[in-house]
Amino acid sequence: MVPKQSASLRLVAEPTSQSILRRREERTQAHALERGLEAVRDHALQTAHAHLNEPLRSMVVQHLQTGGKQVRARIVLEAARALGEEPMTLVPIAAACELLHNATLVHDDLQDGDTVRRGEPAVWVRHGEAQAINVGDAMLMLPTLALEQMLLMPSVRWYIATAFTRRATETACGQALELELLGRGWLGRGPYLRAALGKSGPFFSLPIETAALAAGRQPTRARAIGDALLALGALFQIRDDVLDLFGDKGRGQRGNDLREGKVSALTVTHLERRPEDTEELVALLKRDRDETHDDDVAEWSERLVLSGALEDTCAWADELLRDLVASAELAMEPGLRALVSATAQTIAAPLTGLRS
Amino acid sequence: MVPKQSASLRLVAEPTSQSILRRREERTQAHALERGLEAVRDHALQTAHAHLNEPLRSMVVQHLQTGGKQVRARIVLEAARALGEEPMTLVPIAAACELLHNATLVHDDLQDGDTVRRGEPAVWVRHGEAQAINVGDAMLMLPTLALEQMLLMPSVRWYIATAFTRRATETACGQALELELLGRGWLGRGPYLRAALGKSGPFFSLPIETAALAAGRQPTRARAIGDALLALGALFQIRDDVLDLFGDKGRGQRGNDLREGKVSALTVTHLERRPEDTEELVALLKRDRDETHDDDVAEWSERLVLSGALEDTCAWADELLRDLVASAELAMEPGLRALVSATAQTIAAPLTGLRS
Repeated sequence: MVPKQSASLRLVAEPTSQSILRRREERTQAHALERGLEAVRDHALQTAHAHLNEPLRSMVVQHLQTGGKQVRARIVLEAARALGEEPMTLVPIAAACELLHNATLVHDDLQDGDTVRRGEPAVWVRHGEAQAINVGDAMLMLPTLALEQMLLMPSVRWYIATAFTRRATETACGQALELELLGRGWLGRGPYLRAALGKSGPFFSLPIETAALAAGRQPTRARAIGDALLALGALFQIRDDVLDLFGDKGRGQRGNDLREGKVSALTVTHLERRPEDTEELVALLKRDRDETHDDDVAEWSERLVLSGALEDTCAWADELLRDLVASAELAMEPGLRALVSATAQTIAAPLTGLRS
Repeated sequence: MVPKQSASLRLVAEPTSQSILRRREERTQAHALERGLEAVRDHALQTAHAHLNEPLRSMVVQHLQTGGKQVRARIVLEAARALGEEPMTLVPIAAACELLHNATLVHDDLQDGDTVRRGEPAVWVRHGEAQAINVGDAMLMLPTLALEQMLLMPSVRWYIATAFTRRATETACGQALELELLGRGWLGRGPYLRAALGKSGPFFSLPIETAALAAGRQPTRARAIGDALLALGALFQIRDDVLDLFGDKGRGQRGNDLREGKVSALTVTHLERRPEDTEELVALLKRDRDETHDDDVAEWSERLVLSGALEDTCAWADELLRDLVASAELAMEPGLRALVSATAQTIAAPLTGLRS
């Protein structure tokens, strides 16, 4: 029951009660998001339990239980709200996104020789290389199976499943291209961007593309939206490359990309300005990890600032962000555009402080 | 135009013209099958071209062009006929079966360290381990994408796609289990059969299960048929194990399973009869490949015959074959039963000569 108030009292009280209501709603939404993410974790684990046998089941479950930030699941749940759907109905899609993401992590760690994932030994360290391939293979399949119980027409499930499959294929293509950039001397923006769009793009576009399908958007429209949003992945990759050298990635050592021989956004923009450095930089990247010292990393950090590479890379990120928000595909979807804009800004935020 | 014949002439001529007609029909069917298999190869390559980018596309296409016997594609086309469907309409399903099979070959070769596939260097030898993972990952996705252009309701495509996904998941589980049999001391029929059903079963049941779905069978019925037909894979695996030691696999050296430490159907049946040999046999299997000599292989071949293991294994195959053909799931599908019976007999045929 709302207590009666005099008109004058209401005039004074209203802004305060509105802000209380707003904060209360924000709290409610945050709680709903947490409940949603909990349900996503459960659904991913249930899918693994339902479709895998021992001993593979335990290996997959063990990896899934290392957790993760569930970035993709969050985007699905937020996209649901933006599209006017009840977020909980999209939990299976969010779980599918997380399963696919985790599948690629397991294979990535094996490919890159990374021994630690989320503070735990990587799957290939724990169970051997052959089993890590099996774990990733099974997890590449689980996204489709996670959709089975969704209250959707089988035809809509087909469109969602093919979106997953098509985007997962793009991921493999991007990953394969990235591995070849240095060896084949593909050091320009074109191949870098194509690798980044392929490798990381699907993990940002899939949550929104598939949420749009579940919300009844036509397959061609949802796919066009997904294509436009691949740029979120490129933005993420560029941000990651910059932070690897100039930020605090929380992994202790800076300059892993230089040490491991990765063609990064910084390498690419530096060589645009200083093509005469190509031989020297390629030699550094091709060197054994252990032979690249902190001094080399410090020297190149300075050179990348002086050449304008850092500034160019940040401008590149800005450009991607601007184009994303202005994308024609999002013009008719103001709710999604707001979500994409917020997501892009969150991704790009750590770059802001670095440019001065 | 059929020339007029006298009644007596027709009586004499009829058996001959019938056999001519029969042979002509067999030739027509064989030609149709060859045309179908050609179309399957084309469709698999087109799917790779349509959905992959360089440099991964070339790697996948190169592997696909090594060919193969297309056993699974043949079963799909024959199942089409058995179900009263025009075989050419099921070409995409046959291509999907071949793509999935090839995906597992690429990962298998990497897992087992096999350097040669169909007379060519394996993918991991040609392009490195990391790219072989990408090649297999992409090919695990292509089956669903191969179905996209089929003239079927999207809902039917969904059921076919989930059949592929579920069976591919079973394959990963079977593969993972097989890798653990020796290390964990799982040397009985139960785990062996579970691994064989999982690892090889899907490649025989999928062609028929998905053909049945395309021919309008209910998903639950098609799945039950698929479950029953997993035994074809176990039969295939048992046959393969026997031929590895007692047949001519065409790979030159006999006894690869003993040398590589594989728990085989022969190991399993031998230890049922001679549990006291467990320690000795396990020690042999755990030994380095290079330390197992032709003499060891010859000695164990003899012991496996003397213990009755060879005979038991052949009887095991017989039993699987009998149960398959008598399967309740096939009782209502005489066309499929005939196909399954013929396939099972073809698989088991090389064992017949070995028992005497």
